[in-house]
Amino acid sequence: MLKNDLILRAARGEKVERIPVWLMRQAGRVLPEYRKVREQVKDFVTFVKTPELAAEVTIQPVDIFGVDAAIIFSDILVIPEAMGLPYKMIEAKGPWFEKTVKTEKDVERLRVACGDDLNYVTDAIKLVKKELNGKVPLIGFSGAPWTIFAYMIEGSGSKTFSQAKKMLYTNPKLSHTLLQKITDSTINYLKAQIISGADLIQIFDSWAGILSPEQYNEFSLKYISQICNAITTVPKIVFAKDAFFARKEMSKINCDVIGLDWTMDISESRKLIGENKTLQGNADPCLLYADFAVIKSETEKMLRSFGNHRYIANLGHGLYPDTNKNSVKFFVDTVKEFRF
Amino acid sequence: MLKNDLILRAARGEKVERIPVWLMRQAGRVLPEYRKVREQVKDFVTFVKTPELAAEVTIQPVDIFGVDAAIIFSDILVIPEAMGLPYKMIEAKGPWFEKTVKTEKDVERLRVACGDDLNYVTDAIKLVKKELNGKVPLIGFSGAPWTIFAYMIEGSGSKTFSQAKKMLYTNPKLSHTLLQKITDSTINYLKAQIISGADLIQIFDSWAGILSPEQYNEFSLKYISQICNAITTVPKIVFAKDAFFARKEMSKINCDVIGLDWTMDISESRKLIGENKTLQGNADPCLLYADFAVIKSETEKMLRSFGNHRYIANLGHGLYPDTNKNSVKFFVDTVKEFRF
Repeated sequence: MLKNDLILRAARGEKVERIPVWLMRQAGRVLPEYRKVREQVKDFVTFVKTPELAAEVTIQPVDIFGVDAAIIFSDILVIPEAMGLPYKMIEAKGPWFEKTVKTEKDVERLRVACGDDLNYVTDAIKLVKKELNGKVPLIGFSGAPWTIFAYMIEGSGSKTFSQAKKMLYTNPKLSHTLLQKITDSTINYLKAQIISGADLIQIFDSWAGILSPEQYNEFSLKYISQICNAITTVPKIVFAKDAFFARKEMSKINCDVIGLDWTMDISESRKLIGENKTLQGNADPCLLYADFAVIKSETEKMLRSFGNHRYIANLGHGLYPDTNKNSVKFFVDTVKEFRF
Repeated sequence: MLKNDLILRAARGEKVERIPVWLMRQAGRVLPEYRKVREQVKDFVTFVKTPELAAEVTIQPVDIFGVDAAIIFSDILVIPEAMGLPYKMIEAKGPWFEKTVKTEKDVERLRVACGDDLNYVTDAIKLVKKELNGKVPLIGFSGAPWTIFAYMIEGSGSKTFSQAKKMLYTNPKLSHTLLQKITDSTINYLKAQIISGADLIQIFDSWAGILSPEQYNEFSLKYISQICNAITTVPKIVFAKDAFFARKEMSKINCDVIGLDWTMDISESRKLIGENKTLQGNADPCLLYADFAVIKSETEKMLRSFGNHRYIANLGHGLYPDTNKNSVKFFVDTVKEFRF
């Protein structure tokens, strides 16, 4: 049914004719086409909750950049919202929660979200699948429980997330209770995305890198592993930004693809992770500021290092909003035209 | 002349009776005594430029926590200021530069700072040395050229420092010219600190972790190495936050001590760095939020992992301002009372 299933085959370790490519945050401010649609609804959370618009901007980068997958336009913070903790997105500031989680009572009060709570996402997925008509696969996603936990405790973005980490140190039991609730919600949510048509899923652990290796195993990887065990029908990508220390441990969980950022040496990562996972990444988003000759040579160097088996080309983080659209297209074309 | 030279001996790889300890950002908001002095001058940059007050808050943690070294109270951004790029510290926001560096002309216009430009720092050092009267050594410091460069281009703090990195990608030649000017200024500055009495120096590379390993070698480590080669009379500590990928390369430069953060496994770091450097670190500042029993057990676990040779106990980052003063004291005491 899918006309282009390169990413699914690469994820499963099957042979591919060429390296597949998509970009984190490919649907977003880098596209004037996105900004035009985005203008129709002032409030970001309302925008996320409008399936027709979310579907429209999900498809834009497939048409404009020619990437090998769409990723549903949404936000990782829809989960706290569905659990009873609404948030606002403040321009140039980031997310902000009016209430945060502090006590046992606060955790008790939160409910485990079910798929129906997030109908606006699954509705958008259905619209996208219909519109794509098998052109490329659609990626569903969620935040990793630790990253969601971090926002729910901290109440906003932070350089250190020191309040969230304080909870781990002062009340590990309550931390685990909350992490489990988030995990159960996330499993329900991802299953609903898959039922609605998501062909693979990615778990984003944006704040993985601020934990110690031991804490990461106990408070993050354990829950990511639960999610990976619960999702059995589609390939699973785990991207734990900055968690260089967890690469070996991550190779043991039940996922198909591990995302790398640009600080992680490619051959060292392959050695740590082994041959049984597909790797994804890892160009520095800032490379796309360079002129085309540099983009080409650095991208080809990266592709050669990863090799043509078990690899999906991507950036090592989301696209930065001020990136030139043509440079993004050139990066995608460079990958697609490359042959070993 | 020094009554306590534990840190100097540990830095040089000599035998010590017990593990020495100091804390990054030990002079600062965690102390009510600091906040009281700080209130006397509203503007942060003016405060930094007042030697009597800088000296007073430098000595406070020696008296209150009983740490084995003082570190001169100052700011890494005094270097851009001395080169012709003034900044303001905006409450709850961080540093902000009215002018940033964009063009070749902007770089040409900057001057290489000499020691005299920073008399307010060297005056503070002289006052501290007199007041300390040999009680403990005094640490001088500077930012690493890359970190200073990052602020000079970006003009403020940033999660990604994408504008600074853009300069590396689009104009490596100009980047090197600016980095060299910063390096020359920093060498002059550190030499002036040493002449005035600094007993050892630390180079802070706060934004090391956002570069790729290759870029780090080219645009940061190269210049840190120049500084280490130029400073020959006192021990040198290099702390490159989040630069896990550079540990092996750092073992080759002419420094005495390498700082680690809490994401870096201790025994792996020792293996990568070898036996010829002293290691410093690496407790998570958030550990100090925990109750005393947890602080004690985690700290002792860390001390045992590092071992009693070529080691200086510290945190893996600066103290967070909302840390309880008594917990800081308890951490210091735990190190000082520990015996193998």
